Amino acid sequence: MTTTANSMVPDVVVVGSVAFDSVQTSKAAHEKLLGGSASYTSIASALFAKTGVVGVVGMDFPPEYFEIFRTAGIDLQGLQQAAGKTFHWSGVYEDNMNNRRTNSTDLNVFADFNPVIPEAYRTSPFLCLENIAPALQARVLDQMAKPKFTVLDTMDLWINTTREELMNVIRRVDLLTVNEHEARHLTGKGSLLKAARKILEMGPKYALIKKGEHGAFLMSHDDILIVPAWPLVEVVDPTGAGDTFAGGLIGTLAALGDVTRENLHTALVNATVAAAYTCEAFSVDRLRHATRAELEARARAFRRMLP
Amino acid sequence: MTTTANSMVPDVVVVGSVAFDSVQTSKAAHEKLLGGSASYTSIASALFAKTGVVGVVGMDFPPEYFEIFRTAGIDLQGLQQAAGKTFHWSGVYEDNMNNRRTNSTDLNVFADFNPVIPEAYRTSPFLCLENIAPALQARVLDQMAKPKFTVLDTMDLWINTTREELMNVIRRVDLLTVNEHEARHLTGKGSLLKAARKILEMGPKYALIKKGEHGAFLMSHDDILIVPAWPLVEVVDPTGAGDTFAGGLIGTLAALGDVTRENLHTALVNATVAAAYTCEAFSVDRLRHATRAELEARARAFRRMLP
Repeated sequence: MTTTANSMVPDVVVVGSVAFDSVQTSKAAHEKLLGGSASYTSIASALFAKTGVVGVVGMDFPPEYFEIFRTAGIDLQGLQQAAGKTFHWSGVYEDNMNNRRTNSTDLNVFADFNPVIPEAYRTSPFLCLENIAPALQARVLDQMAKPKFTVLDTMDLWINTTREELMNVIRRVDLLTVNEHEARHLTGKGSLLKAARKILEMGPKYALIKKGEHGAFLMSHDDILIVPAWPLVEVVDPTGAGDTFAGGLIGTLAALGDVTRENLHTALVNATVAAAYTCEAFSVDRLRHATRAELEARARAFRRMLP
Repeated sequence: MTTTANSMVPDVVVVGSVAFDSVQTSKAAHEKLLGGSASYTSIASALFAKTGVVGVVGMDFPPEYFEIFRTAGIDLQGLQQAAGKTFHWSGVYEDNMNNRRTNSTDLNVFADFNPVIPEAYRTSPFLCLENIAPALQARVLDQMAKPKFTVLDTMDLWINTTREELMNVIRRVDLLTVNEHEARHLTGKGSLLKAARKILEMGPKYALIKKGEHGAFLMSHDDILIVPAWPLVEVVDPTGAGDTFAGGLIGTLAALGDVTRENLHTALVNATVAAAYTCEAFSVDRLRHATRAELEARARAFRRMLP
C-alpha cells in the first residue's frame, strides 16, 4: 500500500509482522490490539530516525492503526494490504509476566507474505529483519543494495524447522538478536556468554542477548557491553518489548550514523528505555506517545542509576 | 579465641557463621570446605579495610583455616573456639546453579553461639550483621557504641519463626540486604521495587536486593542504584556469593569513609567483582587469592562495559 508518494530513502527499514494481538494478563484482557514485531520495532526506531516498514496486513486492518504509524512519522510504502485477514496472535500471560501461553496463531495474509522492498528503500543504510522465515529474510537481503548495518531476529520455530536457511542468513548480518532461551537453543550452550561467542562464530560481528527484566548484553569478538533493565514497578504487558528494544537500538545507531562503542552504549540505553515504555501499557499505547526528548530524559536518569 | 593481642579498632566488624561446607555441584564435590557467611564477608571486606570477625568454631577447626583469615589480615579476637564441633552445612546444586538443596545442617557449637564483641571492636564504625537469629543480632547492637553504618542480612527461617524480633532489628540498621526471594517473602510484594520500598518503611535507609546472576539494586527513599552482575563464563560454586557481596560493599564504604552516592556506586562495583571471584571456585579459594589491585582492575573493566 503506497501511502506516501515520496521517494525519500529511510534511515532504517524494518521488515516483519504487523498484526492483531489479543492479550490476556492477570489484570485485563484486550482484543485485536495493534501488534506484530515490525510495529513495535518501527515505532521505536522512528523516535530517532526516518523509518520505513515492510509488511502485510489484511483488508480488515483499521484506518486508526494505519494512523498510528503515520503519526509516528513512519513511511508506509512497504506495507502491503492484501485480500484476506490480518495476522492474529492470541495469548495469555501468567501472573508473574515471565511466561506466556499462545492460544492461537492465525497467520492469514502473513502466510503468503512476500516482502517486496520499495525502490526507495533499497539503499537504506540500516536494516532490521524481524522474526520471519529465514528464506524471506534472505529474499530481503537480496533486494537491498548493501546496508551498512543489518540486525536479525529469529525464533525457535526457525531454529527447529529451517536451521540451514537460518544459518545462511545469520552469516550475512551484522547483529543477531535473540533472547536467553533462543540463544541456548540455537547454540546448545547453557552459559549465555558461551552462547554469544558461538553466535559470533556463525558470522555476525555482534550477538545481542536479551534477558527481559534482567536487561541485555551485547558481545563482539573482543568486547562486551552490559545494560540492566529499566526498573519497572509493574509490568502491564511485556508483548513486543524485545522488538521495541531492537527498534530503539537500530534507530539510535541510524541517528548517530556510526556503529562505535560509545554509540552502541547510547543505543542500548535508549533501547532499554523504549522497551520499558512498551511494558507500561498494552500494545504500543505508551510507546507511541513517548517523545524523543522524554525518552532521552529517562535515558539520562537511567545512566545516573548505573556506576 | 584471642589470636592477636592488639587493641586496634577495626574499620569493619563482621558477625556471623564460620562453618564447614560440604558442597556438591554437577562437576565436583568437596567436603568440609571453609564456609559460613562471616568467612566470605570478612575476607571480602578485608580486601579494603581493617576487618574483625565475631563468630564461633569448634575444636575441630583446622589451623590452616585460621591461617586463611590471618593471611587475609583479619583480626580474630572475636572468633571464639568452643568445645564441640564446628557448624557443618552440606548441600547440592542443580545443574544450572540457580537452585540448591540442603542435605544437612549440623549447627553444633553454633547452636549456643552468644556473640561477645571484644572491647576493641565496640567503637567500630562499620558493622555487618550476617544471617543469625535476630535476638543475637540485637545483642550485638546492644554491645556496640554507635556504628556509623550497619548492614543486616537475614533469611526465610527468621522471617517465618521470629518475625517480630526480626522487625525490631531491621528498625535499628541502615541497610537491609536480602535476595529476591527473601524480599518478596518478607514484604509480601511480588514487584521487587515495591518490596524494596516496603523495606524502607520498616526503618532502614537502604534496601539492597541481590538478584544473583542478574546483579543487584540498592534503593533509598529518593534514589535507586543498579548494578548488573560481572559476566561469568562459568559458575563453579555460588556458595557465599551474597555474603561476599556484602563484604565487598561494607569494606569499600569503610575504606572510603563516607556513605555517599558515588561511594555506594564504587562499593556496588567492588562487591560485584568480589562476588564473581567467589563464584569462580569452591569456598574462598579464588577470593582469598585476589588482591585489591587486581580487583580494582576488574572493577575498572566492568565499569567500561556499562553505559
